[in-house]
Amino acid sequence: MRALRFHGKGDLRIEDVPEPEVAPGLVKIKVEWCGICGTDLHEYQGGPILIPPPGAPHPLTGETLPVVMGHEFTGRVEEIGEGVTGLRVGDPVIVEPNIRDNTCHQCRHGSYNLCPSGGFYGLSGWGGGLAEYAVIDARNLYVLPPSVPTDVGVLIDPLVVAWQAMIDSGYRPGQSALIAGAGPIGLALLLTLKASGARWVGISEIADARKRQALAFGADAVLDPTVDDVTAEVRAATGGLGAHVSFDASGLPATISTCISAVRPKGTAFNVAIWEEPVELDINTLVTGGKRLAATLGFANVHPSVIAALDDGRIKPADMITARTSLDEVVDHGFDELLRNKDQHIKIIVQP
Amino acid sequence: MRALRFHGKGDLRIEDVPEPEVAPGLVKIKVEWCGICGTDLHEYQGGPILIPPPGAPHPLTGETLPVVMGHEFTGRVEEIGEGVTGLRVGDPVIVEPNIRDNTCHQCRHGSYNLCPSGGFYGLSGWGGGLAEYAVIDARNLYVLPPSVPTDVGVLIDPLVVAWQAMIDSGYRPGQSALIAGAGPIGLALLLTLKASGARWVGISEIADARKRQALAFGADAVLDPTVDDVTAEVRAATGGLGAHVSFDASGLPATISTCISAVRPKGTAFNVAIWEEPVELDINTLVTGGKRLAATLGFANVHPSVIAALDDGRIKPADMITARTSLDEVVDHGFDELLRNKDQHIKIIVQP
Ligand SMILES: NC(=O)c1ccc[n+]([C@@H]2O[C@H](COP(=O)([O-])OP(=O)(O)OC[C@H]3O[C@@H](n4cnc5c(N)ncnc54)[C@H](O)[C@@H]3O)[C@@H](O)[C@H]2O)c1
Ligand SMILES: NC(=O)c1ccc[n+]([C@@H]2O[C@H](COP(=O)([O-])OP(=O)(O)OC[C@H]3O[C@@H](n4cnc5c(N)ncnc54)[C@H](O)[C@@H]3O)[C@@H](O)[C@H]2O)c1
Ligand SMILES: [Zn+2]
Ligand SMILES: [Zn+2]
Repeated sequence: MRALRFHGKGDLRIEDVPEPEVAPGLVKIKVEWCGICGTDLHEYQGGPILIPPPGAPHPLTGETLPVVMGHEFTGRVEEIGEGVTGLRVGDPVIVEPNIRDNTCHQCRHGSYNLCPSGGFYGLSGWGGGLAEYAVIDARNLYVLPPSVPTDVGVLIDPLVVAWQAMIDSGYRPGQSALIAGAGPIGLALLLTLKASGARWVGISEIADARKRQALAFGADAVLDPTVDDVTAEVRAATGGLGAHVSFDASGLPATISTCISAVRPKGTAFNVAIWEEPVELDINTLVTGGKRLAATLGFANVHPSVIAALDDGRIKPADMITARTSLDEVVDHGFDELLRNKDQHIKIIVQP
Repeated sequence: MRALRFHGKGDLRIEDVPEPEVAPGLVKIKVEWCGICGTDLHEYQGGPILIPPPGAPHPLTGETLPVVMGHEFTGRVEEIGEGVTGLRVGDPVIVEPNIRDNTCHQCRHGSYNLCPSGGFYGLSGWGGGLAEYAVIDARNLYVLPPSVPTDVGVLIDPLVVAWQAMIDSGYRPGQSALIAGAGPIGLALLLTLKASGARWVGISEIADARKRQALAFGADAVLDPTVDDVTAEVRAATGGLGAHVSFDASGLPATISTCISAVRPKGTAFNVAIWEEPVELDINTLVTGGKRLAATLGFANVHPSVIAALDDGRIKPADMITARTSLDEVVDHGFDELLRNKDQHIKIIVQP
């Protein structure tokens, strides 16, 4: 079958690879749509980062590069391995990409996103979504309701990241929030919070197309840090106090310090970003406000909540899809297009 | 009356100042004991920091330096202002030193420690504990039970800082904790956690006298970062996972990063320290573990809990007092002695 494999920095190749075979507990799916995410771009530009390099195989898959890429994908059940229940051939499914050992303390207590030997389909080996077929652990599949087509289903991936961040931040309905960055994750946070009873959600962004999309998705304020005093605007919109919670979906020294200053005393600045390097932080800004800086990675047990919100229309993310392409053209029309015109796109999805 | 006043960096003077007069809502107390704390030393060595400098009076007291120092103090009620109830002349009292406006959002909702115009008796004006008398808002006085003499009562101050940190950290009985630094605050945290059902409390410290005191106060492990791998030792003592919560009572780049690495996934690193400058922090260490860095300043509504714990013997802090001196000798035998032999002392208390 055809697949996109990562061979090293800047080296993505469409290749013929053996079709994966089903085994007990596993399910073979025919991929319908796969999204390209910031993590994929990072690997392309500067990897291997999460992808296991030669000599250091992933502890669970045992693989090193080249690996099939793509971890945001939906498909149809093609073949069902022994012992798997609750799925039928033809079912439309979304893949939860976490690979985990299912034995560590975190896995056994509901936080498999924090599994120390964790990884991802599409990064760590065991195949991925930028291929015609993938074989996936049945525990990682959720059936999509008829209301959620498999193209829109790809957007579940940024939405579960956002939903997990919302839950872990301690956000409660009726509160106010600032989001820094209106990329896929920031916009997914916006949709998630608006669908979860937020009183006021402001978002800061510098790219025009993304500012427009934030407005279209119902942001109560779209702020531009090159023009606006973001903290002052958030305070003005929240009775002088600041937001209850903020989310850094950008990961810059300026956004993390704004996220701390824009929350009220006892508020939480929640970091969703992955950082490229350590940042200078004035911890006294947490001390004097009795504030918290919290963070998390990935998601665990939140797919059902997100799928239900898509099913009943509380979240309508379809406009996040800004382009579609094919597997054969994914490097030029997907990866390189995102690097050339990142600000024009939110999510490019690929049909293998 | 005699009082110690701060006139500027390195300039502490014992002076005759007018005796303060009682007014409605206020209470005049005869000071019995006053502690010297790290904040006082910082002002002496590098101030004015919190003390209002010339030209920038404190918003509530309207005062600038010189101000009377000392904010950890106990005394006896000498004279009671109009409208004050619940106190009698001769009552032994501990002063809660927070000055606050009592009108802002935080003050009206129980977090007066985060009042934006807040300050402290003994730093911001309105007198202090290194004087024969002080006049204090009746809301800031708590009567000491007969079991808590006024010398030991001075130790309530580090204990309320510790108690507030414990509460705000989300610590719950039965959990494990690491404390970085066995100064007065770190030791107060140790006593507070041990009195609150902690399963295991480790403490890291480099100064020998303080390590010994931590052991005497019941630490389950006393670790020295110059010899021990603190994170590895904490993990080994907590089933390989790390502590539930950690407290940085030292405020160094090494201690904050150890406090983050030594907590388990989803754990909280709680910063009690006041920082002299921004610190380089790798936020990914929070991300990959789904961890939190939290902080707070001061205390609000925790004096009754601490006083009750002293009263019934759950906390026995008397050994934290390592020397006693008089107001006349406070500069040489108090401030300078602490700077000369800091590691030999925990708390020096002063009798005016
Ligand atoms: N925690 C997790 O599990 C997880 C999962 C997925 C992605 N991420 C991370 O989340 C972050 C966001 O992902 P994304 O795909 O949306 O990234 P993105 O790069 O598309 O979005 C970041 C946005 O921030 C904007 N921005 C730049 N400077 C800004 C400023 N000063 N103020 C406000 N906005 C500014 C950019 O214009 C961009 O739109 C990344 O760091 C990514 O690695 C984390
Ligand atoms: N948040 C608040 O409201 C509040 C209130 C009072 C004090 N504080 C702050 O709390 C902190 C502690 O106060 P303190 O009076 O106990 O200070 P301290 O200086 O007496 O104690 C710090 C201790 O850390 C030890 N230490 C140094 N390097 C270390 C290392 N690498 N690992 C472990 N320990 C190390 C020192 O030997 C010392 O004993 C200070 O920063 C102080 O400003 C905060
Ligand atoms: Zn695991
Ligand atoms: Zn106030």
